[in-house]
Amino acid sequence: MDLKAYLEKKRIQVEEALESFMLQPEGLLDHHVKAMRYSLFAGGKRIRPVLCLAVSEALHVDPSPYLRLACSLECIHTYSLIHDDLPAMDNDDLRRGKPTNHKVFGEAEAILAGDSLLTYAFELLSAPILTCGLKSEDQLRIVSIIARAIGPLGMVGGQSLDIKSEGQKISFETLQYLHSCKTGALITAAVQTGAVIGNATDEQFAALTTYGKQIGLAFQIVDDLLNVEGTAEQLGKAVGSDAKLDKATYPSFFGVEKTREMAKAAVEGAIDSLINFDNQADPLRELARYIYYRKR
Amino acid sequence: MDLKAYLEKKRIQVEEALESFMLQPEGLLDHHVKAMRYSLFAGGKRIRPVLCLAVSEALHVDPSPYLRLACSLECIHTYSLIHDDLPAMDNDDLRRGKPTNHKVFGEAEAILAGDSLLTYAFELLSAPILTCGLKSEDQLRIVSIIARAIGPLGMVGGQSLDIKSEGQKISFETLQYLHSCKTGALITAAVQTGAVIGNATDEQFAALTTYGKQIGLAFQIVDDLLNVEGTAEQLGKAVGSDAKLDKATYPSFFGVEKTREMAKAAVEGAIDSLINFDNQADPLRELARYIYYRKR
Repeated sequence: MDLKAYLEKKRIQVEEALESFMLQPEGLLDHHVKAMRYSLFAGGKRIRPVLCLAVSEALHVDPSPYLRLACSLECIHTYSLIHDDLPAMDNDDLRRGKPTNHKVFGEAEAILAGDSLLTYAFELLSAPILTCGLKSEDQLRIVSIIARAIGPLGMVGGQSLDIKSEGQKISFETLQYLHSCKTGALITAAVQTGAVIGNATDEQFAALTTYGKQIGLAFQIVDDLLNVEGTAEQLGKAVGSDAKLDKATYPSFFGVEKTREMAKAAVEGAIDSLINFDNQADPLRELARYIYYRKR
Repeated sequence: MDLKAYLEKKRIQVEEALESFMLQPEGLLDHHVKAMRYSLFAGGKRIRPVLCLAVSEALHVDPSPYLRLACSLECIHTYSLIHDDLPAMDNDDLRRGKPTNHKVFGEAEAILAGDSLLTYAFELLSAPILTCGLKSEDQLRIVSIIARAIGPLGMVGGQSLDIKSEGQKISFETLQYLHSCKTGALITAAVQTGAVIGNATDEQFAALTTYGKQIGLAFQIVDDLLNVEGTAEQLGKAVGSDAKLDKATYPSFFGVEKTREMAKAAVEGAIDSLINFDNQADPLRELARYIYYRKR
């Protein structure tokens, strides 16, 4: 299969859906909505919503009536980037090659734009879905899966731990926990959202959860590698920033060679977990490989 | 009826529920959870959850199986206070007579503690309620009501507009919109949450929504008055801070006398909206009066 074409097709589908579901800047909220849209439409790859849709397709369910749910994942991802970039956090000036949100709109508005994107995600997740058969029970389950993944026991907890760990010696176990929360949890939740939409059996849900965890792990390990090896142009942000902040990373524990092997093992683990899925799951398999070979 | 005793009984019920539903500080998340708890257990009056419970009782439904939903309102309120107090926003050092969150935990952790409290609210709202009869459909409706109330078209949008308006001439219409978003929306959502729990008819829901809007309005007008008239000790924060920031307020448009009349009219509007409710709604009536007479 042609993954590049698949990803591009799905990305466009998500892009159009985001455009249709996102607020328009007008009236008294003009400034606020502009700040939300600035980061949301900054050229992201839309990996999380695409993953969600691909999982649903792997389960032979057409995901198009559920695009709104997939879009919520991108709102959440964008909010996390805006807050991570803040001066009080990672203090980054560039994101995807563009000035970060607080550089353009100021710190107060950047905090609020993040808050609104997070909250708007739950608006998208909870509004009634009238045109299709998803039960309220299942929709509520998706809200619960995502909320748990991105709260104190998930993404935000991971970010707090990350900031607290700067310049400190941490164990590999702490690094693993931190990664699984900060990056892994939302990716796994994206996969699980697709699984609920696709009416997964308990077994399928468990297999897909493993898939999500493994690609989440691979994603973070590759991120660490790119931070060491990539160029600023490829990344759209400063290279070597982790080392500068003295952050614990996979390469700092194991060196580049061993880290690359670990990323590969995670990708293989992800692909193995799909053993009972037919060729409708090929995009998921290719996506796992893509994470390993991506350059930014 | 003895409102003071009623409020105190309900406040204790909410306090105990918050304690049982909130995470404990331990392990790697110790610091993060401590920051969340610091502001959550800083002696708030718990008006929003108490309102929610009182509405459910006004509809003759025992709210005790639904305390988790009421608690989510306090998590959201607390998150909004933490973010509002940040240096980039109102830059307040004191809240309820104690140092603000960022003064104790630093700016980064305060932002994240707020993010986690907001997200945790949605965890509380969406987790399955097994012990009682609330339908998934209704629970999802509550999630949707609350998300809409506190996002870009509600609380956060209002805060953005408030910050953008500092030192600028704004019309009274803008001030009204700002207030209804920033303060009114969450109070109204608290009332509506109680209405859904209490199986309100459409008519009852509409009447209670009016009640919520009117007390929300009264609440904000009285806040403006207290900022002019109160003492620092009563408020637990600096007095006259609105005037210092050159913020538009009700007294700045109408003077103190007229503003007091407007607060009274809002309270009366709230009480009138309950005309078809029996004496089970007396706490709601008394609460409306209490908002007018409160000193902090």
